[in-house]
Amino acid sequence: MNRIITVGRQFGSGGRELGKRLADELGCPYYDKDIIREIAARTQLAESYIQQVLEHRPSYFFPITTGNTLHSTTPDYLLHQHTSVYTEQVNTIREMAEKSDCVIVGRCADHILREFRPFRLFVYADMASRLERCRKKAPEDEALSDKELKKKILRVDRNRARYYRYYTGQVWGQPANYDFCINTSWVNIKAATHALAQMIREEPLP
Amino acid sequence: MNRIITVGRQFGSGGRELGKRLADELGCPYYDKDIIREIAARTQLAESYIQQVLEHRPSYFFPITTGNTLHSTTPDYLLHQHTSVYTEQVNTIREMAEKSDCVIVGRCADHILREFRPFRLFVYADMASRLERCRKKAPEDEALSDKELKKKILRVDRNRARYYRYYTGQVWGQPANYDFCINTSWVNIKAATHALAQMIREEPLP
Repeated sequence: MNRIITVGRQFGSGGRELGKRLADELGCPYYDKDIIREIAARTQLAESYIQQVLEHRPSYFFPITTGNTLHSTTPDYLLHQHTSVYTEQVNTIREMAEKSDCVIVGRCADHILREFRPFRLFVYADMASRLERCRKKAPEDEALSDKELKKKILRVDRNRARYYRYYTGQVWGQPANYDFCINTSWVNIKAATHALAQMIREEPLP
Repeated sequence: MNRIITVGRQFGSGGRELGKRLADELGCPYYDKDIIREIAARTQLAESYIQQVLEHRPSYFFPITTGNTLHSTTPDYLLHQHTSVYTEQVNTIREMAEKSDCVIVGRCADHILREFRPFRLFVYADMASRLERCRKKAPEDEALSDKELKKKILRVDRNRARYYRYYTGQVWGQPANYDFCINTSWVNIKAATHALAQMIREEPLP
């Protein structure tokens, strides 16, 4: 079985950087936006639409029970489309994992690939260092006040948590669901990645 | 400033083993029971009594407010003794940290030494592997059924959580309070320790 590393991450914590560095160290592919491109190609839907679907759980899809009757609050075709996108995500991620060792960031990959026994990382940081990282990485956020940027960070994380909960039934970021949780507020990502890569290489294949 | 590593750990997760190995790798002292011995020497109280005090928050010490009057539910001398033990714990741990690099397991050391900017580890595992580890490490637990042993594990953890909350005001095991959280259900402790030691050596001193 291939060696799969999944990376869950709080927005602005440097999870993507850690994932990329890890893939480089291990000499294996790193998947992130590629998943969205692949789903778009398979479903013939726009990447931007896929992105939007994948960043929100379909909360408004929950059926409402009134008396003994179930009412759906969304048109069937929309529900079907969201489900198709998720199904394609599952297929795409499974195919990636079957092809070779790889690092996959986000996308509930830890849950989707649970039979592969992936090495599951979760990357997080305190708000001050996430604000700093966001400012460095996305200069377009410079127009936002600290308060607005913090609101954005919390909104993205809330959506990730809801999405994860909806599709996996698990709590996003809960240590029990991961093998290693790394606080990048103080830990140096480069040094951490180097050490993790060495450790992962030493672990027997699942 | 010395390099201090603190290890919080769920009961049966292998935190002590990880702490010991880390101290060996880094060539620095490892403190655990030594703290209790030192407090006993300083306070002239029995080690077993110190152990008992340090494993329970003094919940029954919370003063009760009735109207504008404060009532204590415990005799003053007992409250005083518990506070003395905690004060000696703080002094002992600070002196250890001032003396040299070291690894300290438990005892709210992450909080007590926060000005030292310790590298804060938390070690945890799922119940199945904690049961297995407890059986291996403490043959006297063999007489307990799985249900009883699980109850014991949960009780020890509950006491640790309450104690930590009482003295630090923080949530025990909450990732935000640690730099690295390690799930030993799957991660090999020996390999993880080696990687952590390497990473810690590469980090600049606080």
